[in-house]
Amino acid sequence: VGAEDFSEFDLIKNIRDGAKSFSDALRTGIGDDCAVISSSMKADLLVTTDLLMEGVHFDRRWFSLEQIGEKALRVNLSDIAAMGGIPEYAFLSLALSRSLSRGEIDALLEGVQKTAEAFEVTIAGGDISKANTGMALSVMILGRVEPARAILRKGARVGDRLFVSGTLGDASLGLRLMEEAESGPDAEFLKRRQWTPEPRLELGRVLLQNGWVSAMIDVSDGLSSDLRHLCEASGVGAVVRRSDVPCSEAYRRTCSAHALDEAMAILHGGEDYELLFTVPREIANSQAVKSLPVVVTCIGEILPSGSGIFLEYPDGRRDVLAPLGYDHFR
Amino acid sequence: VGAEDFSEFDLIKNIRDGAKSFSDALRTGIGDDCAVISSSMKADLLVTTDLLMEGVHFDRRWFSLEQIGEKALRVNLSDIAAMGGIPEYAFLSLALSRSLSRGEIDALLEGVQKTAEAFEVTIAGGDISKANTGMALSVMILGRVEPARAILRKGARVGDRLFVSGTLGDASLGLRLMEEAESGPDAEFLKRRQWTPEPRLELGRVLLQNGWVSAMIDVSDGLSSDLRHLCEASGVGAVVRRSDVPCSEAYRRTCSAHALDEAMAILHGGEDYELLFTVPREIANSQAVKSLPVVVTCIGEILPSGSGIFLEYPDGRRDVLAPLGYDHFR
Repeated sequence: VGAEDFSEFDLIKNIRDGAKSFSDALRTGIGDDCAVISSSMKADLLVTTDLLMEGVHFDRRWFSLEQIGEKALRVNLSDIAAMGGIPEYAFLSLALSRSLSRGEIDALLEGVQKTAEAFEVTIAGGDISKANTGMALSVMILGRVEPARAILRKGARVGDRLFVSGTLGDASLGLRLMEEAESGPDAEFLKRRQWTPEPRLELGRVLLQNGWVSAMIDVSDGLSSDLRHLCEASGVGAVVRRSDVPCSEAYRRTCSAHALDEAMAILHGGEDYELLFTVPREIANSQAVKSLPVVVTCIGEILPSGSGIFLEYPDGRRDVLAPLGYDHFR
Repeated sequence: VGAEDFSEFDLIKNIRDGAKSFSDALRTGIGDDCAVISSSMKADLLVTTDLLMEGVHFDRRWFSLEQIGEKALRVNLSDIAAMGGIPEYAFLSLALSRSLSRGEIDALLEGVQKTAEAFEVTIAGGDISKANTGMALSVMILGRVEPARAILRKGARVGDRLFVSGTLGDASLGLRLMEEAESGPDAEFLKRRQWTPEPRLELGRVLLQNGWVSAMIDVSDGLSSDLRHLCEASGVGAVVRRSDVPCSEAYRRTCSAHALDEAMAILHGGEDYELLFTVPREIANSQAVKSLPVVVTCIGEILPSGSGIFLEYPDGRRDVLAPLGYDHFR
């Protein structure tokens, strides 16, 4: 069988099942946005890493070297946000094509450095080598969180309300507009959402401090796939109300102008890096939810284990919400 | 200017000079084998990462998938050894070519897992994606060391004796024998040194506990290059006595059988992952040095700042020891 015949998530499960633990201090290992390691009385350690490959994760036709550097850091910061944590250190490994000029390499480093400074993250190490074909970047971020307080993917309970921050679908539509060389204010907004996603660090911190979030993940692969990760980790089902899933005005206008199906990118498009989280029913309508630093929207609720994951239309009809988000091996 | 016109180490220096620190807890950042972060009263955190690219760091003609997995972990463990630390967690990021079969991927994971178990390291996270061309592996290891006790590259003092563990040149000659499809017991020994280098973790721990090592680095790029890193970090010079640099019998016999210059791989060949360290003169002849868990050899001594780095021949003649070890951009 070739690599096409199995899922990225099967492989991760295999590694997790085969991994032997030699540590009492590992609170959460493979299978969440970050690993959580008990470190001191004051803080747990958060660790996240992503390996980005040219031609797979980014295309140099649409991304400048500076944008590649910025985004590599931002997507990892989003994993720290998804645990309610504070990022502290970044480690950067680069494999650079020989065709890159010194100016291009400097632009890449500038993108990494200015992003690190903007989020007060210290670049503490890394590795540089050459690449024979496309370039590769690996970013690792270390962060901290109050002991045993990291918000995990598991923990959602039946009846909890499902929320998402900001709007969905923008980044995925933005990529399409890059490919079609679209311009104009809406196109620029959507492309910026693809180039420089905003890690929801402040929101993550407030949610942790409020103490009522039961489970959380960031939307990197797409709502349908990331909701499935959260539900599988929590052992629950869910229903999403189609008409409540938030999208931006720029997204709506662009879909309409190009006669695109609005649902596709909202439900399955990745890379928005918004936070998807669950809160107990009694909190869902409280003032606290309305005064968060980023607008959040209730899009559904958690169902009992075994009931599946559904999309509900305004007329009450329900369809299975299949995970059509990004999987590297499908 | 193209990438050929500057050094890997220039680039690292540039990143270090541009990196802004937002942390009081970072004891040692860019420019040592590991980053050292003050973490609790009981331990400092060690962090090391390496990004390995197919065709640059390993060639699938000479390495099985299992060997690639093993070595990826071992070279990172060596960085923990070079600080005197204890490895605890590994994070593995893979970008896998579509041409890999499930069996090949499983062999790669098997190599990683069995190595992790052999060194009692817990695999705690990572990332899997596809690669359009060659595969890439990024390994990050977290370790621990007694607070403020990590052995750094800086700290060597004038008059200190320079030691190296084991033998040098084997791994580099082993690679050559793979390319020439040589077999026989000597060839197998040398190839194994290339396939499965031994991270000198136990030696590193004993050296830290003894407390008399002033500076240390692992020999990954080659003696001439890694000695230069140690000297630059310490602000000193050094002299290496050519006839004292240790090589294995297999190495000596193979060089002689093929009429190869013995000096080349010993002085400049990388990937032996032995430890290169300095100790005060009065310790150098003590019993303690003779009863270490790995044989170590005194190969020279530390000279004052500004005197340079030399190779001394048996007749007393000295040549500059130019750093001809591996540099990705030369």
